Amino acid sequence: MSIKEMIREHPQVGADFNESLAEAVKHAMYCAAICNSCADACSAEEMDMRRCIRLCMDCADVCTMAYRVATRRTDENRQLIRSALAVCIEACETCAEECARHDHAHCQRCAAMCRECAEDCRRALQALNDEVHADGERSTFAHDAT
Amino acid sequence: MSIKEMIREHPQVGADFNESLAEAVKHAMYCAAICNSCADACSAEEMDMRRCIRLCMDCADVCTMAYRVATRRTDENRQLIRSALAVCIEACETCAEECARHDHAHCQRCAAMCRECAEDCRRALQALNDEVHADGERSTFAHDAT
Amino acid sequence: MSIKEMIREHPQVGADFNESLAEAVKHAMYCAAICNSCADACSAEEMDMRRCIRLCMDCADVCTMAYRVATRRTDENRQLIRSALAVCIEACETCAEECARHDHAHCQRCAAMCRECAEDCRRALQALNDEVHADGERSTFAHDAT
Amino acid sequence: MSIKEMIREHPQVGADFNESLAEAVKHAMYCAAICNSCADACSAEEMDMRRCIRLCMDCADVCTMAYRVATRRTDENRQLIRSALAVCIEACETCAEECARHDHAHCQRCAAMCRECAEDCRRALQALNDEVHADGERSTFAHDAT
Repeated sequence: MSIKEMIREHPQVGADFNESLAEAVKHAMYCAAICNSCADACSAEEMDMRRCIRLCMDCADVCTMAYRVATRRTDENRQLIRSALAVCIEACETCAEECARHDHAHCQRCAAMCRECAEDCRRALQALNDEVHADGERSTFAHDAT
Repeated sequence: MSIKEMIREHPQVGADFNESLAEAVKHAMYCAAICNSCADACSAEEMDMRRCIRLCMDCADVCTMAYRVATRRTDENRQLIRSALAVCIEACETCAEECARHDHAHCQRCAAMCRECAEDCRRALQALNDEVHADGERSTFAHDAT
Repeated sequence: MSIKEMIREHPQVGADFNESLAEAVKHAMYCAAICNSCADACSAEEMDMRRCIRLCMDCADVCTMAYRVATRRTDENRQLIRSALAVCIEACETCAEECARHDHAHCQRCAAMCRECAEDCRRALQALNDEVHADGERSTFAHDAT
Repeated sequence: MSIKEMIREHPQVGADFNESLAEAVKHAMYCAAICNSCADACSAEEMDMRRCIRLCMDCADVCTMAYRVATRRTDENRQLIRSALAVCIEACETCAEECARHDHAHCQRCAAMCRECAEDCRRALQALNDEVHADGERSTFAHDAT
């Protein structure tokens, strides 16, 4: 049931496994599921949770996209993986900030998950950027500069 | 990072947690990710893997839908959850049968994951059907009869 | 921009285009987008729309799965396409019934879209079943009997 | 069946409809479906299409995320919409470049769709940025500078 072991078995991966990227994939997968659940739980609360519902739905969509794209190892689309990680960080941080405002256990859990996912994506993005600089490539992606 | 704990915290769940359904959600979430990875890994193999690619993409789509729908606990859509579980069993069994034919480690892992997911969905479907019969409701969903 | 023309250009389609299935794909694609929009619009309404939000999110997920699976023509997974169409009919009819109760223009539009999608999926399912019976195959899928 | 009319009926939209953003939503919805179809058609071709399969699957995932996020009008998540549009432009341009290399009718159609989607997203992004500058806000998103 390990998505990380699965990626390691891709025919083009071999020695180039990228631990931090696989960790980001795993947590984005989880974060997509947690945010989907939180959007639903928020809609059942008595108080007005519309902002939280919307941000959770957005974050679930972004995390799903990010983990699916970042899982793929056939040929190469590294630049898009970087952009996917960057937008995932943004969605997770926005969602975490809102969820953290609410006492509901599901919102607190969702906020913690989003923060963990953002941190893992940031680490994976940094590792990909370091690779680029080590290769002497000139990166044109704006988030590389951060 | 527990999707099962997350579901337990839904305001309408309370004592009615449904352990087997939560287990099915968790494994369908994983199976979606594993099948997405296997479709990609298969497309990088030298041999003709077109059938496997197609069935893995189908299974990833169905598992994603199934876990998202089966996660929701607001109000009620139990009949659709049953149908989602039933189609998930079918997609997983079809994919497992094909993946099991190939020696690639990723295909073997995907076949095992699909079988586990199918079994968990079957158990969850059975539990939902038992509930219906206990309630004296008459179920109209065809898979109930199996 | 035509998804139907796109399917016609698949290397394995040729004379076996299946007009009614392509129509179902197109409308399920639209219905997924309309339901995603309605879930969001409902969450912004002042009155309690929780049931409608939930059913729209479910329907968007099912329609997305159904159109993606039913689009594919590589090798064969016709049984799963039938099951996907059947669950799509169910999700659309459930969502249409709820949306039709509300006067909001977005709910009325969503209800109409869901009904149209259900009808197209039903026609596509019937055409696939007729094919099966013409071939003398014995279908094991419960919805075939309807 | 109009997703643009649907967005106009959102309770918080009113006079602030944003024509270019609605156009981007519509074309990203279509592009998601076309890329999903092209990935499948490519996997059925005799020649090695692995790069094209991968880029089409990535592009379908990104377009799906982008149209779903950009559809939502509840409360506010404009910064994430901008980022979603930016990553959508990138995915579409990468996919278009690869698809354009192949003579298959489905690849040529997919390339044209991706270019159109990228152009619409660029126009929508520009309109959102103009709004920001008109408001005197300082944008921190890197793509704003382009």
